[in-house]
Amino acid sequence: MAFHVAITMNLINGIERNAISLHDRGWSYGDGVFRTLLLRGGQALCWLRHYSKLRDDCARLGIDCPDAVWFEKDLRHIATQQPDGVIRITVTRGNTPRGYANQQGATPTRVVTASPPPVYPVAYQAQGIRAQLCRTQLALQPALAGIKHLNRLENVLARSEWNDPEIAEGVMCDTAGNVISGTMSNLFVVFGTELMTPDVTRCGVAGVQRARVLELAAAHGIPAKVMAFDIERLLGADEVFLVNSIIGIWQITALGKKVWRPGKLTPQFRPWLDMND
Amino acid sequence: MAFHVAITMNLINGIERNAISLHDRGWSYGDGVFRTLLLRGGQALCWLRHYSKLRDDCARLGIDCPDAVWFEKDLRHIATQQPDGVIRITVTRGNTPRGYANQQGATPTRVVTASPPPVYPVAYQAQGIRAQLCRTQLALQPALAGIKHLNRLENVLARSEWNDPEIAEGVMCDTAGNVISGTMSNLFVVFGTELMTPDVTRCGVAGVQRARVLELAAAHGIPAKVMAFDIERLLGADEVFLVNSIIGIWQITALGKKVWRPGKLTPQFRPWLDMND
Repeated sequence: MAFHVAITMNLINGIERNAISLHDRGWSYGDGVFRTLLLRGGQALCWLRHYSKLRDDCARLGIDCPDAVWFEKDLRHIATQQPDGVIRITVTRGNTPRGYANQQGATPTRVVTASPPPVYPVAYQAQGIRAQLCRTQLALQPALAGIKHLNRLENVLARSEWNDPEIAEGVMCDTAGNVISGTMSNLFVVFGTELMTPDVTRCGVAGVQRARVLELAAAHGIPAKVMAFDIERLLGADEVFLVNSIIGIWQITALGKKVWRPGKLTPQFRPWLDMND
Repeated sequence: MAFHVAITMNLINGIERNAISLHDRGWSYGDGVFRTLLLRGGQALCWLRHYSKLRDDCARLGIDCPDAVWFEKDLRHIATQQPDGVIRITVTRGNTPRGYANQQGATPTRVVTASPPPVYPVAYQAQGIRAQLCRTQLALQPALAGIKHLNRLENVLARSEWNDPEIAEGVMCDTAGNVISGTMSNLFVVFGTELMTPDVTRCGVAGVQRARVLELAAAHGIPAKVMAFDIERLLGADEVFLVNSIIGIWQITALGKKVWRPGKLTPQFRPWLDMND
């Protein structure tokens, strides 16, 4: 079976192309980073935050991130034809001959691809989602933790654990037993009036929306802290929610046999997160 | 600066192409596996072993590996134009829409690329190589350990730690302090008449040449065992050598300040490994 992949615009270094060189190190070794964000009415939401994260992630890997102006040009180009959708921005170390070495002097590759706007059931926002606990655990690797890099096999394996369409996301722990995130989202738990989110300095991704939730909490006087906790602690929480730049915010209302009633913080954060700043 | 990449033949699903779809999951997530092997006089060395390893690695990730006959056709095609060189075979889960899910029903992508034969200094075989200990450590991830998958950022980071051309390889430890491998090679240590190689069930790659060394040792009555050891133990070894399908076998004769005299087992194994079986 071949998938029908919608025809949309893809730009490689600003040029319309649908295929990337086999010498690109993103393809060869996953040697690059990426971002996924929404284009709405021609505008890339939280653009500066996404660019800053892209640049920081590149710096962690020693990749010289292209200036924002290049991506902004690409985004304008795409928006003229497709003003609403999902944008994926990828930066790789560039083309080199075979081998882990040969990194010096490579010119980074800039890829911007567009996909149709996502379609999720209305109930995900209205009533929350059903999630499951993944067996696949995240390895502890401080050198890569926090970075949204192209080495995503752990997420792929975790997401392959179910194909029940009633289950919208999986919750992942690390190999030390700490809850870390969803397969494609960051995670928050609520105890009383306090928010907690896992530390992502040994594994996981420090997402843009995770940072925004922490800033919004501070701005609204909601206590929030970054700390380690295990799945037992999560199951005892009053409310659990997930965020990313595409889904926005989803409350987990069922995880295995555990059920939560609709909480207060998820709907409180939704309009705040929906703003573009 | 742009690299000059030699013009050689690349086949994607049997068709001559130099670029891969942006929807390929190898590019998107490093969702695939690969092999690197020598083509000599038109013959792919240790082909059956490489194919078996490719197939096993695919199975670990739930990818349906194409039958050997397809790769053999590709290799014959390449050999007519380039009978000597380095072959990289990659199998990815195939093209899918965006997202970690959407794996069901994808058709795996088969890529065979050719590069010129490698050129290493003659001294590497005659006198051994200088190596250094890498700061980058391998994370413990049993779900991916042993597999030569496309998530190779740890190797890329380790290899980026030096660009002194006098240093031919780096030795990597895991986050628990065990010696595991070179950045691109498997590692053996010799104590007296006994061989030891690191366990690779929590990280590292179980390479084809590593398996051959273990089989050759057994066939020639040389005691060999797979076990955990740390860098102190390695520094106390009588001989340390590295193997992979491109370099063959190199003795490490200098690691930091530690120096070894040429050993006996490296030259003993060299002609055995050079055979094509």
